[in-house]
Amino acid sequence: MKAELLYEGKAKKVYRSSAYSNQLVLSYKNDATAFNGKKKASFIGKGRLNNEISSLIFPYLHERGIRSHFIQRLNDTEQVVLETKIIPLEVVVRNLATGSITKRLGFQERTPFEPALVELFYKNDDLDDPIINDDHALLLTDITSKELREIKVKALEINTALRELFQSINLKLVDFKLEFGRLPDGSIVLSDEISPDTCRLWDMETDAKMDKDVFRQDIGDLVTVYEQILERLEARV
Amino acid sequence: MKAELLYEGKAKKVYRSSAYSNQLVLSYKNDATAFNGKKKASFIGKGRLNNEISSLIFPYLHERGIRSHFIQRLNDTEQVVLETKIIPLEVVVRNLATGSITKRLGFQERTPFEPALVELFYKNDDLDDPIINDDHALLLTDITSKELREIKVKALEINTALRELFQSINLKLVDFKLEFGRLPDGSIVLSDEISPDTCRLWDMETDAKMDKDVFRQDIGDLVTVYEQILERLEARV
Repeated sequence: MKAELLYEGKAKKVYRSSAYSNQLVLSYKNDATAFNGKKKASFIGKGRLNNEISSLIFPYLHERGIRSHFIQRLNDTEQVVLETKIIPLEVVVRNLATGSITKRLGFQERTPFEPALVELFYKNDDLDDPIINDDHALLLTDITSKELREIKVKALEINTALRELFQSINLKLVDFKLEFGRLPDGSIVLSDEISPDTCRLWDMETDAKMDKDVFRQDIGDLVTVYEQILERLEARV
Repeated sequence: MKAELLYEGKAKKVYRSSAYSNQLVLSYKNDATAFNGKKKASFIGKGRLNNEISSLIFPYLHERGIRSHFIQRLNDTEQVVLETKIIPLEVVVRNLATGSITKRLGFQERTPFEPALVELFYKNDDLDDPIINDDHALLLTDITSKELREIKVKALEINTALRELFQSINLKLVDFKLEFGRLPDGSIVLSDEISPDTCRLWDMETDAKMDKDVFRQDIGDLVTVYEQILERLEARV
């Protein structure tokens, strides 16, 4: 199913599909990185867990009318997706203030954002993924202002859908990061992954962190936590 | 004319007016600071020069339909202004990329922005005046989204007016920072100062820097340069 390696990122490898020219194979790695790659480790099982979790979440979103690059789970650690040209934006949606925004802008920990706050970051490792405004996004990417408005609306729709999903498995969706990509027909769809690597999830009862923060902050075992997320998702689906 | 000292900033002191309860006296200091106060010096004559320059620019803008807090020059180093509640935003307008934006977002030095690029920073010394997006501005200040749109339109109108003014005295307006304040009637007007402390100005022929960058970068004598700006402005008016 896999032909040449096109790209290796921090958490995934991207291969061309040997079967279809417009498809890619995403191979989830066991590596975890934080603080823009400054902290690194590897966890046996992480690649599988994020692949399984993403492979449950994308179809859920699809049922809710959210188009994405996801086609299907291929095996333990791999999934097949439509090839898109990734738009170099990280679209962050925040329901509660925590992490970088409390330090950057002085929001008190747990300040609720209603409606959810959308932030854009320029996906550029050399620049440490700087935060940008809408006008920067139009200068730094090929999206139009109409497309940017649509991306933000879509991000909030995804937030609504994901909050419901996670609430049903007793998790609070605190914030998350999305990426979008452009299909050959010009349309823009949700891309990348949705997993505890890209979402902050807190247990609804204990407020325990059940996401990559356990690695960032050395407060728990990443694989145990990700396994719990997968188990709860599987029990729901 | 001056009653109690209300506030001392890096470049100005603000006094209540002894004559009118809705007026303030701004007293321009000789201090220069850069890099958020990390670099400091004092230049005899700087306070007078910025007061005189600001006292020429605000009336020019007023003739062009731009309302501001400025009432009149009081003496060498002081001016009388309407009391406003300062909105904690630094509104930066850029015609050419230079300075922080080249490092932050990787724009090549001298990249032209057409239309001019507007950036918002949250005026907060403890946080080092972080860059923010529109939604942050609505959360961190008391302005409405309509007022924010009006502030941005106003900033671009001021850019057009200032570019013409500086072009007529052989200076290129590269970028500048504005602040706005709210009058007791609720309306928002241009506040603070407009001077070589807050504008990047390059000589049209030699591209020599004629603004606070001579101090930031130790490439010239601040007072000599500011005197030239004042002379050219006085010759035009």
